[in-house]
Amino acid sequence: MTKGSDTRNALLAAGRELFTAHGYRGASVRAITRKAGANLGAVTYHFGSKEALYGAVLGSVVEPFRDHLTEVAQRPGAPTERIERVVQAFFSYLQEHPALPALMVQHLASATPLPAGARRVLEGNLELLAGIIALGQLDGSIRRGDPRLMALSIVAQPIWLTLVRRVLHEAVGFDQRDRRMRAALVDSVLDFVRAALAPHPQQA
Amino acid sequence: MTKGSDTRNALLAAGRELFTAHGYRGASVRAITRKAGANLGAVTYHFGSKEALYGAVLGSVVEPFRDHLTEVAQRPGAPTERIERVVQAFFSYLQEHPALPALMVQHLASATPLPAGARRVLEGNLELLAGIIALGQLDGSIRRGDPRLMALSIVAQPIWLTLVRRVLHEAVGFDQRDRRMRAALVDSVLDFVRAALAPHPQQA
Repeated sequence: MTKGSDTRNALLAAGRELFTAHGYRGASVRAITRKAGANLGAVTYHFGSKEALYGAVLGSVVEPFRDHLTEVAQRPGAPTERIERVVQAFFSYLQEHPALPALMVQHLASATPLPAGARRVLEGNLELLAGIIALGQLDGSIRRGDPRLMALSIVAQPIWLTLVRRVLHEAVGFDQRDRRMRAALVDSVLDFVRAALAPHPQQA
Repeated sequence: MTKGSDTRNALLAAGRELFTAHGYRGASVRAITRKAGANLGAVTYHFGSKEALYGAVLGSVVEPFRDHLTEVAQRPGAPTERIERVVQAFFSYLQEHPALPALMVQHLASATPLPAGARRVLEGNLELLAGIIALGQLDGSIRRGDPRLMALSIVAQPIWLTLVRRVLHEAVGFDQRDRRMRAALVDSVLDFVRAALAPHPQQA
């Protein structure tokens, strides 16, 4: 590994840490280069701009997530089984990679446009799930409805329930670090999604 | 109105604006008092601390929401009708009061504990919805399941879909300012919730 790629990786790591803690605006180029042990011009030299570094940091966090979801979704099975696997993958991945929900929240709190790479990942994740729903509608195992809007209703649950886990703990004593509570939550969401997608009795 | 309550209200308004834009940490007491046209000691004098001002600001935003939801939920009707009304109220209230989702996101991005007043409102909203679900389970119009967890699955949808509206627009071209798209989204969520709560055929 050359010295240049060492610096590039150090900037990515520092950017990830500081954008996660303080958001896009709150993390200055000065603080990022200082943490990376690089000179002040290193962000421009390696990425072109702070915005491009932000795009690279988001990409380094959301692309492995996209790859994991795709792998899980493409394992063989009926459409409803594959959707349940995707929901479980959302829950477990977001829990095991806390930088991802933390960056999501910081991004929502900022007025920054979503970088193109992250936009494509988000679009791809939605199309992946919508495609499985459409397959289930074709074989009659899933009720009718707009597959992309149904996909949004599905992912809203694991994502939002992960983002608000601290608030849920404080407000209603629901602690997702407790394995039993966590399992009950995931099971309840899976039941909810399964029931929401089931074909109407007259359709089945 | 006394001069004291004028200053108090000016501090609440300035706090609401600056906490919404910059979060709890990002909004300094100095910036808040300057915007309110008050002296630097006014936050301590009127509220006791910056934390207490934050609690008062959150309360001034979430309490009217709680009152609106309660009013909507308590209008007569079958449990499923009342739940659909609550879902619609979440969508329309959050759209019409953008300070509320903005403050939610800023709060999630901060490491600040949720003030007691806001905790009680959140707990109350969840109990309200869980109570209606439990009534529907008793009369057989709603399937079995933990009413509080089912309530979380329901509210996740209007809240998360409001919080990510800018990202959805950028990433998948879904613009909730377009009345037709917005109506399709709300209808899809209502269909999803209705199907998710329906009693299983063998239960009905």
